[in-house]
Amino acid sequence: MEKADLLICGHLLTMDKGKEIEAGAVACRDGFIVGVGSEKEMAETFTATKTLRADLGVVLPGLINVHTHAPMALMRGLADDLPLMTWLQEHIFPVEANLTSEMVYYGAMLAIMEMIKGGTTSCCDMYLFAGDVARACEKMGMRGFIGEVLYDFPSPNYGEPANGFAYMDDLFAEFKTSDLVTITVDPHAVYTCSPDLLVRLKEVALDHNSSYVIHLSETAFEVSECLEKYKATPVNHLHNLGLLDSSVVAAHCVWVSPEEIALMARTGMKVAHCPESNMKLAAGIAPVSDMLAAGLVVGIGTDGAASNNDVDMLAEMDMAAKLQKVHHLDSTKMDAATALSMATSGGADVLGVGQELGTLTVGKRADIIMVEMNKPHLTPMYNPVSHLVYAARGGDVRHSIIGGKVVMEDRLLTMVDEVALLAKCRRYAERLTGKPC
Amino acid sequence: MEKADLLICGHLLTMDKGKEIEAGAVACRDGFIVGVGSEKEMAETFTATKTLRADLGVVLPGLINVHTHAPMALMRGLADDLPLMTWLQEHIFPVEANLTSEMVYYGAMLAIMEMIKGGTTSCCDMYLFAGDVARACEKMGMRGFIGEVLYDFPSPNYGEPANGFAYMDDLFAEFKTSDLVTITVDPHAVYTCSPDLLVRLKEVALDHNSSYVIHLSETAFEVSECLEKYKATPVNHLHNLGLLDSSVVAAHCVWVSPEEIALMARTGMKVAHCPESNMKLAAGIAPVSDMLAAGLVVGIGTDGAASNNDVDMLAEMDMAAKLQKVHHLDSTKMDAATALSMATSGGADVLGVGQELGTLTVGKRADIIMVEMNKPHLTPMYNPVSHLVYAARGGDVRHSIIGGKVVMEDRLLTMVDEVALLAKCRRYAERLTGKPC
Repeated sequence: MEKADLLICGHLLTMDKGKEIEAGAVACRDGFIVGVGSEKEMAETFTATKTLRADLGVVLPGLINVHTHAPMALMRGLADDLPLMTWLQEHIFPVEANLTSEMVYYGAMLAIMEMIKGGTTSCCDMYLFAGDVARACEKMGMRGFIGEVLYDFPSPNYGEPANGFAYMDDLFAEFKTSDLVTITVDPHAVYTCSPDLLVRLKEVALDHNSSYVIHLSETAFEVSECLEKYKATPVNHLHNLGLLDSSVVAAHCVWVSPEEIALMARTGMKVAHCPESNMKLAAGIAPVSDMLAAGLVVGIGTDGAASNNDVDMLAEMDMAAKLQKVHHLDSTKMDAATALSMATSGGADVLGVGQELGTLTVGKRADIIMVEMNKPHLTPMYNPVSHLVYAARGGDVRHSIIGGKVVMEDRLLTMVDEVALLAKCRRYAERLTGKPC
Repeated sequence: MEKADLLICGHLLTMDKGKEIEAGAVACRDGFIVGVGSEKEMAETFTATKTLRADLGVVLPGLINVHTHAPMALMRGLADDLPLMTWLQEHIFPVEANLTSEMVYYGAMLAIMEMIKGGTTSCCDMYLFAGDVARACEKMGMRGFIGEVLYDFPSPNYGEPANGFAYMDDLFAEFKTSDLVTITVDPHAVYTCSPDLLVRLKEVALDHNSSYVIHLSETAFEVSECLEKYKATPVNHLHNLGLLDSSVVAAHCVWVSPEEIALMARTGMKVAHCPESNMKLAAGIAPVSDMLAAGLVVGIGTDGAASNNDVDMLAEMDMAAKLQKVHHLDSTKMDAATALSMATSGGADVLGVGQELGTLTVGKRADIIMVEMNKPHLTPMYNPVSHLVYAARGGDVRHSIIGGKVVMEDRLLTMVDEVALLAKCRRYAERLTGKPC
């Protein structure tokens, strides 16, 4: 008998070539998956220290949220239903000017609590004071792809733009050996970063072999402004600067033409699709079905909780699939299996870690969730994939495992005192916004 | 001191002229609301047999789901992502041919369990074997506006169309004195009911002063077929037959022109908006913001779980608001308060019971829910209305009260053994579809 730290038993959706195992089990040791098979076979092969189950439990790779601004959880519901510029300039930016390192830390903790409780095991986060976001990930046992946002103007964190490079260097140094945190390079967008800044940041990304995360073609206004300023769309502008390649993670890509989609696919760049934020801010409907048809790798992101207003990846898949269907008036667009693969293996590929994450496969990191289906809204269960996309919600996730560590068991977070932490987050939110909450 | 059966304490959203009471309480006696005010004032006025609270509890009128096919919960996730006609003709209709009275009863029980657990306290249900749906409502303590669907062809329930009238007579007789069930008259649609049937059913509705519930202008195909057959759109066809008035509850209304919206508003007819079903079946996006601007009364419905795939009204509000925003590329469209009023007072007005339901007002029936906000995805809370629409989900509802009776307390249904009932529903689903689930 081999030893294992953990055996997770249930109906397996491996997301590895669509393989399902009805009475299956995953064995984990030292943070990695060491066995995937029938429960019988796994029980005959491994003696496990701990075994996890659930009533009608469905076991799948942890969800990968490829675009977040975690600390904005402190601004959840602060202002809604406003024109984008009013929302940003009168509500979000003035509040963000008050941000401190501690507020960012607790804001990130709040979002990560929600993410873990909703089945997300990795996030790709762009924000200010990114070191604090990364430290929040380590504290909570969350896997993070974390970058400090840079733009042409002073930052509430590092001050003058030039200092941002030194801040990034420190981040790369601090988290070089982290099992959980990977540092990314994050230019904000083409409308906030000069060509020079975009190019210099690419050099940093190349030096560290890291992802280059950027907002791209989110609104029609961004496209027309870019056309006016650079005589090119945002996609073409980046291409003209020689910046599009497989390390690029472009968030939104709402306003991209068929020609741009073809170009994007040729460069190997990746897309983070954020349907709920795009809907709530009325940015538009991204042509995701066309992107997938063109061979682009697309993942799903929630964006920040200030424009969503949650970071529930199960709900986000539902929205993604339904929005494509109604947009194309074609109910065959984005089926449930496609949405689920975008949120798992697709997300891993977006972040360049498809060899390590995104499927239940021996040798990959043990990022695994179990969803409990024995509930009225998930009964009957003809097809667990359909349920995960169209009926399950964050609250249905029973256990979450990241890097082999059980970070949530029976809906209780294992790394923090949830009640005390929530109260603390509420106090930081009040300090940040000056409003009772 | 006055006596009360129940005191429900929390942050009140009365939905009555937008009045909120932060530390408030609602007193109930004999099924009705007898007091609404500050907790202090209510405690000084009433001695209550029972008091309900929750951590950061928000108290509001129970949600009113104005379009459901409850028993279709047995077909949840049976077939998805298919063209509408393939879905209907190859998956839904063949299964529905197997329906029995018992299957309908347990299918309705399953949907009602989900509804109560998700904060819905009234549903307007159109299906076959409607008497069984109505009996399921009474068993679960659910408020139902229940109708037997009629069309030009034989029904798996009553056989030849002519028998449908006798079946309706029996329904009206059986539930005449029910506190919970109100019988409606339900022609299926203009493409399945002859003008003669539509007119005859209107006479029945007039006789009983009941709602006239019909699917209307759901798909572009329905409109073009109606234009070809009757030289009129579905709305105009009903108008030409003299059938549009304030008793009409028209589900979907996706394909209606500005002229039709103006006509609809003039007649006083009501609309049941079903965004998730319209998205998943790719029917289209209903011009709900335009309807509201024209003064039409609109409620929110989930449609059946076979095309949604849940009956979660909190999620449905989220989808409704976001869909209007992105459709109009205007983030000010359908704000959270509008979505919430559609799901509460709007729903009551749609069903013609605005004097009895839909707000926390003294004299109205005590249909009340409490949502628990002390959770990561609902923290901080600047604005409970925003949270209910954009972040809360069915699973966040803590207590549900219908007609003064606590039908769910601390998430446990009080009227049934949930685990045993779920197992039974699963068996009926297997019998109905012949598939393991």
